[in-house]
Amino acid sequence: MGRKILILTEGLSSPNSAKTACSVIRYRSEEVVGVLDSTVSPQPCQNLLDVGEDIPVVNTVDAIAEANVLLIGIAPTGGGLPESMRQQVKVAIERGMDVESGLHDFLCEDIEFVELAKKSGSKLRDLRRNNEREVAQRINISPDCLRVLTVGHDCSVGKMVTSIEIVRGLQAEGVSAKFIATGQTGILVEGDGCPVDAVVGDFISGAVEKQILAHQHHQVLVVEGQGSITHPCYSAVTLGLLHGCLPDVLVFCYELGRTQVKGVDHIELPSMESQKDLYLAMANAAHSCRFIGVSINSRNTDEKTYLKEKERIESEWGLPACDVFRDNAQPLVDVVKSSMVN
Amino acid sequence: MGRKILILTEGLSSPNSAKTACSVIRYRSEEVVGVLDSTVSPQPCQNLLDVGEDIPVVNTVDAIAEANVLLIGIAPTGGGLPESMRQQVKVAIERGMDVESGLHDFLCEDIEFVELAKKSGSKLRDLRRNNEREVAQRINISPDCLRVLTVGHDCSVGKMVTSIEIVRGLQAEGVSAKFIATGQTGILVEGDGCPVDAVVGDFISGAVEKQILAHQHHQVLVVEGQGSITHPCYSAVTLGLLHGCLPDVLVFCYELGRTQVKGVDHIELPSMESQKDLYLAMANAAHSCRFIGVSINSRNTDEKTYLKEKERIESEWGLPACDVFRDNAQPLVDVVKSSMVN
Repeated sequence: MGRKILILTEGLSSPNSAKTACSVIRYRSEEVVGVLDSTVSPQPCQNLLDVGEDIPVVNTVDAIAEANVLLIGIAPTGGGLPESMRQQVKVAIERGMDVESGLHDFLCEDIEFVELAKKSGSKLRDLRRNNEREVAQRINISPDCLRVLTVGHDCSVGKMVTSIEIVRGLQAEGVSAKFIATGQTGILVEGDGCPVDAVVGDFISGAVEKQILAHQHHQVLVVEGQGSITHPCYSAVTLGLLHGCLPDVLVFCYELGRTQVKGVDHIELPSMESQKDLYLAMANAAHSCRFIGVSINSRNTDEKTYLKEKERIESEWGLPACDVFRDNAQPLVDVVKSSMVN
Repeated sequence: MGRKILILTEGLSSPNSAKTACSVIRYRSEEVVGVLDSTVSPQPCQNLLDVGEDIPVVNTVDAIAEANVLLIGIAPTGGGLPESMRQQVKVAIERGMDVESGLHDFLCEDIEFVELAKKSGSKLRDLRRNNEREVAQRINISPDCLRVLTVGHDCSVGKMVTSIEIVRGLQAEGVSAKFIATGQTGILVEGDGCPVDAVVGDFISGAVEKQILAHQHHQVLVVEGQGSITHPCYSAVTLGLLHGCLPDVLVFCYELGRTQVKGVDHIELPSMESQKDLYLAMANAAHSCRFIGVSINSRNTDEKTYLKEKERIESEWGLPACDVFRDNAQPLVDVVKSSMVN
C-alpha cells in the first residue's frame, strides 16, 4: 500500500510556520491526501499554504479514511511538539496510522505514544533521530564530482528549495545530479539524507562527509545548507556542514527585505557582503571555493523591487541571480553546469 | 566516603594518549589513588605520565583495595571504549566501584555493564551524556563580567590547562574568576561544566550560553576552548562555542612545532596568522572581541627554541606570550586583569 499522508499543521497553517508541510506538498503532492488543522474551517490547502491547490484541509483524522501516515508538518525553533498537537497524534496512532516527525523531541521516546503504538501496530518514525558516530577523514573525496552548497544569510530563506530546483534543472538537461538533504523536510522530499542539526557536535562534519562519499559517483551533488555562518543559535551546524562537504562552489540564498534574525528578532542580520566574505574565508580554509550564483527569495516584495534588487546583485556581485519561484532556477542551473569539471 | 579514583589507561599510559588521566592527576591529585595499566610493570606514575610523582601504576583493580571509582583516563578520536579496557571495567563494576567515563559511547547504554552494575550497586557516570535542548537567546548577558575564551590552532594544545592556570592566577590575586569547563576532563577538574562536543548541533551555542548566564556573577569567566576553527572534524563545536559564549577577549593557544592536524595527519595546519584572522572575523560578527595573549605549548622543543619563538610572537603579534608549564601563566593573568571592566 502506498503512502497516503495526512499532514498535521494544527493552529499553524501558514507558509511561514508550516515550512515542512509546504515543501512536502510542493514536492511530494502525489502522496499527500490532506492537511489536518482543527482550528480552521475545511477549505482547499492553497488558501492557507499558497501551495497544494485542492488538497483538503480537514478538522479530524477521521475525515480522510484512506490516510495511513500522519506527518508532523512543522519544524519550530527548539524542535518540541506543541501541546495542541498531542491529541491529534494520539488519535492517529490509535487508528493504526504511522506517524512521522522531524522534531528534536522524538516520538519513539514518548512513553504514551510508544504504548499506544504497541497496541495499534502504528510505526513511529523520527526523521532527526540518528546515531552518527564517525569523525570526518578528508580522504577519498573525488575531484570528478562537483560539490555545490547553498548557504544563506539566515534560516528559512530557501536553501532547500534552491538546491532541489537546481538538481531538477540539471537532471532535465541530462546531468547526473543528486540533492543531498540535510534537514528533516529535505529528507522527506528526497527519501534519504542526514539530519545534520540533530547530530552530536563532534560528528557533524563526519556525517556530511559520509553523504558525499556515498553519492559522489554523480556528476554534481547539491548540498542543502543550514542556518547561517553568523546565526546566534545554529552557526555550529552551518560550519560543520561547510567543512564536511568541502564545496567547490557556493550559491548564496537570502530573503529580500529581511533585516532581523528569524526567531532571534532582537539581533540584526549582518550585511550580506560581510557574510559572503566569512563563508569564503571559512570554506577556503579547507578547500578552494567560490560563489557562482545568488538565489533571491522575494516573497515579501513586489516585482519591481525584486527586479531592481536582482540587477543590483548581478552588477555588484558579478553573479547570476534569480528567484527560483518567481522566475525559475535556470540561471543557477546554467552556472552550475558551466562549473562542472567534465 | 571521599572519592578514591583509580584511573584506567590500559596500554595507553603516555602524556599524549592519556590526556584525561594526566589532567585529573595534575589538578585532582588528592583524589587519585592509582593508575591501572596491565601492559606495563608497576612503577611510579611520574615515569609514564610526566605527572603524579609516586602515585602507583598497578596491573589489577585489586591492587588498590581502597579505590572506589574507576575513571576511564583516555579520550580517543571518536570516543569509543577500546576493547582492551572492557575487562578491567567489568572487574571494577563487579567489585562495586563506580565507573566514570568521558567517552562518546555511554557506559549506561552498554547492556553488559548495566546488568553488572545492577547486581553490584555500582554507579555508571557518563560525563558526556547530556540532554541540552535550548537554543541560544543572546539576552541578559552581563557587560560587567569579562568573558575570556581560549582558542587554538588544533586539538590538544593546552587550551584547558591555560584556562585553568589563568583562573587560578586570578583567584590568587583576589579576582572572582571561574573556569567554564566544556570538555569531559575539564568537567572532572572543575566539578561542573558542559560537554559541548557531545551536544546536538542545534543546541551547542545554547548550552554554552547557559553556562555563561549561570556564572556571570563572577568578574571573569575563562571558557575552555575546543578543537579549532579550521579543524576538519570539530570546527562546528569550535564555532558553536565561540558564538555561544561571545568572548570579549581571546587567548591563542598552540603547540610549537606542530605542522599537521592531530588525528588527521595528512591535513596541514593552516598558518596561525590565518587562523587568528578567522577567529577574529567570526567572533566579531557576533560581539566585539580581540586577542590579548598567546599560550605557547613548547613541550616538544628546547628552552632556546622556545625563547626565540616567544620573542617572535610577542614582537609580531604584539601580545604577551608564555608557556604556562615551562614558565607560568602570570603574563596571561596580568593581561586578563588589565582587560577587566571594573
